[in-house]
Amino acid sequence: MEPIVWEDGVLKILDQTLLPNKVEWIVCRDYKDVASCISSMKIRGAPAIGVCAGYGVCMAKNKNDAIFLLSKTRPTGYDLFWVLDRMKEGGDDLLSLAKKIHNEEIERTYKIGEHGFSLLFDGASVLTHCNAGSLACCGVGTALAPIYLAHKKGMKINVFVAETRPRSQGARLTMWELGQAGINATLIADTMIGFVMKKGFIDMVFVGADRVAKNGDLANKIGTYQIAILAKFHDIPFYTFLPSSTIDLDIENGGNIPIEERDKNELGYNFNCINPSFDVTPNHLITGIITENGYFKRND
Amino acid sequence: MEPIVWEDGVLKILDQTLLPNKVEWIVCRDYKDVASCISSMKIRGAPAIGVCAGYGVCMAKNKNDAIFLLSKTRPTGYDLFWVLDRMKEGGDDLLSLAKKIHNEEIERTYKIGEHGFSLLFDGASVLTHCNAGSLACCGVGTALAPIYLAHKKGMKINVFVAETRPRSQGARLTMWELGQAGINATLIADTMIGFVMKKGFIDMVFVGADRVAKNGDLANKIGTYQIAILAKFHDIPFYTFLPSSTIDLDIENGGNIPIEERDKNELGYNFNCINPSFDVTPNHLITGIITENGYFKRND
Repeated sequence: MEPIVWEDGVLKILDQTLLPNKVEWIVCRDYKDVASCISSMKIRGAPAIGVCAGYGVCMAKNKNDAIFLLSKTRPTGYDLFWVLDRMKEGGDDLLSLAKKIHNEEIERTYKIGEHGFSLLFDGASVLTHCNAGSLACCGVGTALAPIYLAHKKGMKINVFVAETRPRSQGARLTMWELGQAGINATLIADTMIGFVMKKGFIDMVFVGADRVAKNGDLANKIGTYQIAILAKFHDIPFYTFLPSSTIDLDIENGGNIPIEERDKNELGYNFNCINPSFDVTPNHLITGIITENGYFKRND
Repeated sequence: MEPIVWEDGVLKILDQTLLPNKVEWIVCRDYKDVASCISSMKIRGAPAIGVCAGYGVCMAKNKNDAIFLLSKTRPTGYDLFWVLDRMKEGGDDLLSLAKKIHNEEIERTYKIGEHGFSLLFDGASVLTHCNAGSLACCGVGTALAPIYLAHKKGMKINVFVAETRPRSQGARLTMWELGQAGINATLIADTMIGFVMKKGFIDMVFVGADRVAKNGDLANKIGTYQIAILAKFHDIPFYTFLPSSTIDLDIENGGNIPIEERDKNELGYNFNCINPSFDVTPNHLITGIITENGYFKRND
C-alpha cells in the first residue's frame, strides 16, 4: 500500500500510528502539517520521510522556512536531508521536482527488489526488524522488496518479524503489510531472536537503513546492532537494503551519525528510562548492502 | 516485599500481573487456587513457585491429587519439582515442611547476596533481565540480592533493567521493586541492550535462573541467551544467581530442559506468532554461577 498520495494540491499521509487497528489518512495542507506528521511518526521510514518533506516544501509560501522546520523533525535518517538539499537547489517548479523524487524512490524499490532477489531461495526463512516495506519507502519497500518479488514469482518465503519495541513497528506495520500481501509471517518478541536463530529457523537477516556512512557503517532502528551480532554468532548472513539516497558520503563512519533520543513516554511506563531510537551497526558485521545499483559486499 | 504469606490457614499471594499499577493480594484456600495462580503467572519466579506449591500441597485433602495438578502448572522451572518431591516424601506435618522450605528459600537469598556482593564495586552498573528479585524468590531475590546488600552498605549501584517482552517482568516488576528500595534503575527496551553495552554503560550482567543442568547450561526467561551472547561480544562478565534447588542434576545439559510455549495472546497482537517463555544459555557463555554455597566459575 502506498503511504503517501499527492492529490488536488494536498498531501495525504496514511497514519502509521493507528495501524494495524485503523486505516486512516491525514490531509496535510501546509508544510507545518507535514513536519508534525514526521515528528510524531505518523509517517516514518527514511525514504518515506524524504518524499513527504519534498511535498512539504512545495506547500510553503517561503521555501526556506519550510526547509528549516522540516530539517528539525528527525535527525538520524539521511533521505530527509538529501531531499531538502535537492529542493533547496530546485528551480521554480518545485512540485514537479517533489513528484520526480517520489517516483524515483518508487522505482528504486523495484530495482532493490531485483538485486536482492538472488539472495532468496524457495522456502527461505528471513528475519526482519522494524518496518522496511512499502509503508517506510513507498513502492515495494527496501528490505521487503525482494520478498515481495519472490512471492510474486510463486516462491514460498517465511518471514520472522521482530516486534521492535518501543514503538513496535515490526508487530504493527510489517506484520500487517505482509498479511495484506498474503506472505507467511511469524511475529516474535525482540527477546526471541537468539532463540529462533539457535533453533535454525533463520536463513538470513534483511533490514533497512536510516543512514549509511561512507565506510558502510549502518544506522538503523534500535535493535539492529544486536541482531547483527547475533547473526554473526550464529553464522547467518546479515543484509541491509537501501536506496542510494540513504548513503551519506559526508560522514566517514557510524560514530558521526546523530542518534535521535525520543520521548521517554514511548516505552509506556512511568519509570526512569532512555529511548535511543537508532543504533549503529559497524560494517564488519554486515554481509552485504543492496541498493538500486546492485549488491555490494564489504570492501566493494 | 514478600510476595507469599501463610496466615490463618490460607496462602496470600501478591498478584504480580497487576503490578506496578495495583498492589493486590489473592487469597488461596485450596491447592487448585494455588495451581491457577502459578499457571496464570500471578506468582512467578522459579523459587517463589516452589514455595507456593509447598503450601498448596498442605491445603489438599489428597496429597497426590495436589502434587499431580501442581506439577502440570509450569514445565521449565525446576524448584517446583524439587519442592513437590520433598512434599511427596514429607511425613504427617506437611505444613511445617512447607514453612521450612519457605524459610530456607529466604535464608538462601541472603547467602546468595553475600557471595555475589564481592562482584560489585561502588558505582557499578549492572544489567538485569526479567525479575530475579524478592518478587521471584522471597527474601532479597537471587540476581538482585547482591544489589540490595550493596545498597544497604551505602554503595551506589546503577541497574539497567531490560523490559523483558512479552510479559514485561523487567519493566513491571523489577523497576517497581528497585524503586521501592530506592535503588537507581533505568528501564530499557529489549532492543537497546546492544546499544547500552557498546556505549560502555554496563559493567556486568546479573540474571536469575529457572533450571540449571548438570553441565551448567542455564534455562532462564526468553532473551537471556541473546544477552549472554551480547555480553561475550562486548567482553562483559555474565553471572547467574540461583538457590541450589534450581539445579537439576538429573539433566546432563540444557538440550534436555523442557521449554514452555505459552499462549500466543501474551504478545498482544492478533497475528501469527510463537511464544517460547524460556531459552537455554550454554555454559561457555556464563562467567560464573552464584548459589547459597558460593561462587562457581566454569569447570568448578
